Amino acid sequence: MVQVDKLLVGGVVLTMNTKLELYRSGAVAISGDSIVAVGPVEDLLKDYQADEVIDCTGKIIMPGLVNAHTHMPMTLLRAMADDLRLDVWLMGYMMPVEREFVNPAFCRLGTELSCAEMIRGGTTLFADMYYYEAEIAAAAADAGLRGVCGQTVMKYSAPDAESFEESLAYTRRFIEEWKDHPLIVPSVAPHAPYTCTDEILKACAQLATEFDVPLQIHILETRQEAEDSWNEYEKKVVNRVADLGIFSAQTIAAHCVHVDTEQIRLLQQHGVAVAHNPTSNLKLGSGIAPIKEMIERGVKLSIGTDGAASNNDLDMFEEMRLAALLAKGATNDPVVLPARDALLMATRWGAEALRLGHLTGSLEAGKRADLIILDHAPVHNLPHFDRDQNSVYSQVVYAGHASDVLHVMVNGRWLMRDRQLLTLDEGRIRVQAAGYARQMDEFLAAREGNVLNKLIAIGGLQQEESFEIQVKVQPDTDQQALIQRLLHHPAVEIVKSLHYRQYDTYFLFEDTQQGRVRYREDDAIDEGGKPMAVRTRLTYTIHDKEREFDEAVMLSRSQFIAPADRPLRFYREYFQAYRECEVHKDRLRWHVLYKGVLFYVNVDQIMVPAANHHYIEIKSRTWSARDAEYKAVLIAEMLNEVLGIKPGQRVRMEYVELCR
Amino acid sequence: MVQVDKLLVGGVVLTMNTKLELYRSGAVAISGDSIVAVGPVEDLLKDYQADEVIDCTGKIIMPGLVNAHTHMPMTLLRAMADDLRLDVWLMGYMMPVEREFVNPAFCRLGTELSCAEMIRGGTTLFADMYYYEAEIAAAAADAGLRGVCGQTVMKYSAPDAESFEESLAYTRRFIEEWKDHPLIVPSVAPHAPYTCTDEILKACAQLATEFDVPLQIHILETRQEAEDSWNEYEKKVVNRVADLGIFSAQTIAAHCVHVDTEQIRLLQQHGVAVAHNPTSNLKLGSGIAPIKEMIERGVKLSIGTDGAASNNDLDMFEEMRLAALLAKGATNDPVVLPARDALLMATRWGAEALRLGHLTGSLEAGKRADLIILDHAPVHNLPHFDRDQNSVYSQVVYAGHASDVLHVMVNGRWLMRDRQLLTLDEGRIRVQAAGYARQMDEFLAAREGNVLNKLIAIGGLQQEESFEIQVKVQPDTDQQALIQRLLHHPAVEIVKSLHYRQYDTYFLFEDTQQGRVRYREDDAIDEGGKPMAVRTRLTYTIHDKEREFDEAVMLSRSQFIAPADRPLRFYREYFQAYRECEVHKDRLRWHVLYKGVLFYVNVDQIMVPAANHHYIEIKSRTWSARDAEYKAVLIAEMLNEVLGIKPGQRVRMEYVELCR
Repeated sequence: MVQVDKLLVGGVVLTMNTKLELYRSGAVAISGDSIVAVGPVEDLLKDYQADEVIDCTGKIIMPGLVNAHTHMPMTLLRAMADDLRLDVWLMGYMMPVEREFVNPAFCRLGTELSCAEMIRGGTTLFADMYYYEAEIAAAAADAGLRGVCGQTVMKYSAPDAESFEESLAYTRRFIEEWKDHPLIVPSVAPHAPYTCTDEILKACAQLATEFDVPLQIHILETRQEAEDSWNEYEKKVVNRVADLGIFSAQTIAAHCVHVDTEQIRLLQQHGVAVAHNPTSNLKLGSGIAPIKEMIERGVKLSIGTDGAASNNDLDMFEEMRLAALLAKGATNDPVVLPARDALLMATRWGAEALRLGHLTGSLEAGKRADLIILDHAPVHNLPHFDRDQNSVYSQVVYAGHASDVLHVMVNGRWLMRDRQLLTLDEGRIRVQAAGYARQMDEFLAAREGNVLNKLIAIGGLQQEESFEIQVKVQPDTDQQALIQRLLHHPAVEIVKSLHYRQYDTYFLFEDTQQGRVRYREDDAIDEGGKPMAVRTRLTYTIHDKEREFDEAVMLSRSQFIAPADRPLRFYREYFQAYRECEVHKDRLRWHVLYKGVLFYVNVDQIMVPAANHHYIEIKSRTWSARDAEYKAVLIAEMLNEVLGIKPGQRVRMEYVELCR
Repeated sequence: MVQVDKLLVGGVVLTMNTKLELYRSGAVAISGDSIVAVGPVEDLLKDYQADEVIDCTGKIIMPGLVNAHTHMPMTLLRAMADDLRLDVWLMGYMMPVEREFVNPAFCRLGTELSCAEMIRGGTTLFADMYYYEAEIAAAAADAGLRGVCGQTVMKYSAPDAESFEESLAYTRRFIEEWKDHPLIVPSVAPHAPYTCTDEILKACAQLATEFDVPLQIHILETRQEAEDSWNEYEKKVVNRVADLGIFSAQTIAAHCVHVDTEQIRLLQQHGVAVAHNPTSNLKLGSGIAPIKEMIERGVKLSIGTDGAASNNDLDMFEEMRLAALLAKGATNDPVVLPARDALLMATRWGAEALRLGHLTGSLEAGKRADLIILDHAPVHNLPHFDRDQNSVYSQVVYAGHASDVLHVMVNGRWLMRDRQLLTLDEGRIRVQAAGYARQMDEFLAAREGNVLNKLIAIGGLQQEESFEIQVKVQPDTDQQALIQRLLHHPAVEIVKSLHYRQYDTYFLFEDTQQGRVRYREDDAIDEGGKPMAVRTRLTYTIHDKEREFDEAVMLSRSQFIAPADRPLRFYREYFQAYRECEVHKDRLRWHVLYKGVLFYVNVDQIMVPAANHHYIEIKSRTWSARDAEYKAVLIAEMLNEVLGIKPGQRVRMEYVELCR
């Protein structure tokens, strides 16, 4: 009799080894961090004895699940902002909150919360990509989980680095520090081809190959990425990455939703492993990865939950079920990805994808003891059919729940017994997480309650204080005649003339103190009357102060301007205005000097909402009441003497009021 | 102070009423079967007192979930046969097993098992369609659940009826007996348009309107159904059903995967409620229902699990999550079906779809007390954001689990407290379900181990004992010369001549005692050499006995023949043969009288696998050794004297051996 540390006896043992051996009444012998033997219970009881013998009758003993793609600290953002379009979700919520809150303590706590959830749900191996990855590695190692920890590198500044060089240096130190750890495999994670320059991608691959560690990257999560790559590089994303030599590293590519046949072949040829994230891809409306074709072409496959902010949990039972279901539904082929293969994706194939197939992913003598024990007989999984081995895989995949997991062991160490966590303090995590949520709620509430803060959150804003003296009239004179007078008056010197159509969308808020946001599109018009160039800007006007003169008004405004580099739809969904208002006008504009003073003269024809209304505006910048007073006099002269407009045609309104 | 029976105090109350009122710290007062008041905890504590006060701090109080489409007894078939094509699954497994096992006791037990699972998962209202529905109603009522119970009617014989008239009579009695029950609403369930004649559909609608009960029907689950309806009726399915007046009844249409815009409009116009079954539709590869368009066009929507045989559980948390995810993924639009609306589909909208919106589906004074209490703070649902009411719906829909349900109440009665079922004996159910599973395993194992039984299971088989005397030669003579001799020999009278190409696929089994199955396709060839008509047959040959004569052999065969009305692919997946073998031949066949005795002469040219080999067969039916002996002599004469084939060219093999 050989003495071992632990003997798990009875229960159905799913080895998930290459022969898919399954013991209806099996046993597993464990010593130290490793499995010593797996087989029928009667065989093992003949050869092995242990102090700790666990009766697993009525249970399933199987390899722990492998979550091949996640961002652990993002559990702290769970359900913060859902059902939003990707750009609103990412740029409007995730990134501003991450900029504000992500620091080493946040990453450590988020990792602890994730580890608690993953252990409870039977995950024993994960692959993570985030910031401050050394903190994540430390927290996961303390929790006792096995993981591949990828430090993010990208061309933008990140919460943990101002530049990619800084990230890369951090990654090098991180790898050096962790490369011999029994549980953690450090890894390089260039965020995605579209967020990395060629130089960054090459540097990451070099670092990964230098230390022989895996490289993690997001690839083709969205259709947009495919289009952008083609437009920018004249290459498909996978081709570009392959050409840069990235796949010389052991690559794990997350998503791969929009790969075509050529790119699937490339992934297969280079031995790239794909981490399929069905929930996240559906939830963000990214699409459905071509898993059937990837299987047929022999691509290494694994399953991930992605971050909890787009899932919203880290439940690998849900994830492998959805993988199995979706592959069928998307192809109208119910034999694609049977339960057995989905379970392989979430166990041995997953471990192989993370390059840890030699250590874990199946129950085999010599491998590390990473295993879970499930209740085989909850009401939602009765009855049991024994005729066909596949019935057991069906039970686990199609009706198994995270809550069926009773015990979890990683590296020979119990992390959960009878649903009690042994390595993490849930009470403390709960309290600390609640504290963060309160802070984030306050941050967002202050921002939501304040349009300016929402604007600042998405970046690129420049403040501009402006003081302007201006007049607007609705003349009863013929427009062409007015223009002729302006152009030919001896006291007027034309500095510049412009013609454009201006499309303004105003976002108005219930609390008018909040000011208003205008999305402004200017289409410059050539001499033939055709649009030449388009410029979009966002302006935010908080509050107008007015001072009346005889014929004109002085406005002092606090105005913010930003390039509007996202579509109107983004701003609409992001600001969720109380009311929207459209004003479109055809504008002839002159910069003129009148008595040596610069004025702007606009001859506007309104197209929307009040078709064919005409207005003339005369404006000038100003800086003092005295200067304003002087210019008000000049404006009155221009109206009267230059343009021949009689008094009383002045209108006191702004264009936004047209649609009130 | 008003005295009530029960007060639930504290916790987040999601009313799901039309205003979507939500109380962060709310309370619910209950008397008898009904809700008396819902509101902020401080308000209710001022007005109400109760003996039973349940502290719900840290919990969510919400309406019970509505499973709008299921077949409860099918939980007993869970994981029996998965990952198969619809026809193999349905006709190869479900229907044979149902024919064998479905009886009142089976339905009662299956319902008990389903009710146990549904209560544990927070479902308080279901819509069922099955056989022996009175048994199902009784079991569900005993378990305390609310349900719409639909008795199945169709043109085929069912486990509970030989004919549709019998089903209809059963349904009438069932409705009369149950129509005033406080929990159960009886209903008519014509199975589907393709399994019902116009007459049946009309009779069902008439019965439903006579008693003002709902009508349940499967509509357009598969693309095939759409095609078949068009071919058979020259109408789209929904148009046909609408034209028949079915929608004059309160109709609940399950699936509606393949409805187009016209049909969606018809559903909306007639107030038909759709029960969406995303898991089942994916798992069977049926497709993805156009939920986004149905929402936009204002169709009443609800969510169902379908039967556990195609799900494989009755978990409404999974189902509403998948509904929310899939609607986004299928349209690449992440704002479709936000969590709030998915939760409405699974609560108030579901109750409205089942025509019980006046009684249940939301927490409102006057409605029945059908509610569930969830743990608000499991690790997989931390932390909580309070800024936006939608975060709570996100928590329930995107990360809620069946195992979060702590307490369940229906009609004012507790069905589960602290995850202990109060109305069902899980131990007994478990044991009895295991008993059924063993029997079904044995039934299937016996069948799987026996090809004949598998054939019988799919129906249509006719046994034929045949005794045949025959010879086969591979002549060295020119084929045309042989034919000319046959046609012009004075002792030979040609009765009939045929030309066809015969494509045989043999399914061979490891245990040759099992016999072999042949899928035979005959393409009759016209005089121009073109195929005219195709006939497919299935033959099963168990065992040949042979008796040798000088030149011929007598074969006695037990042969079974069935029309092969399903595609070759079906039989391939159904029989899972050890080996397959293809033989294709071009056959000229004559029925001839030689000396007044009927013989069949085949001149065969093999196309696959041995191209251009020629064989001649002469055969006759026989019934005795004496007759066989006489015919053996005539065969020898024909070979020698009519065809001029020298002795020694006889081959002793069957065509199936060609590809060995």
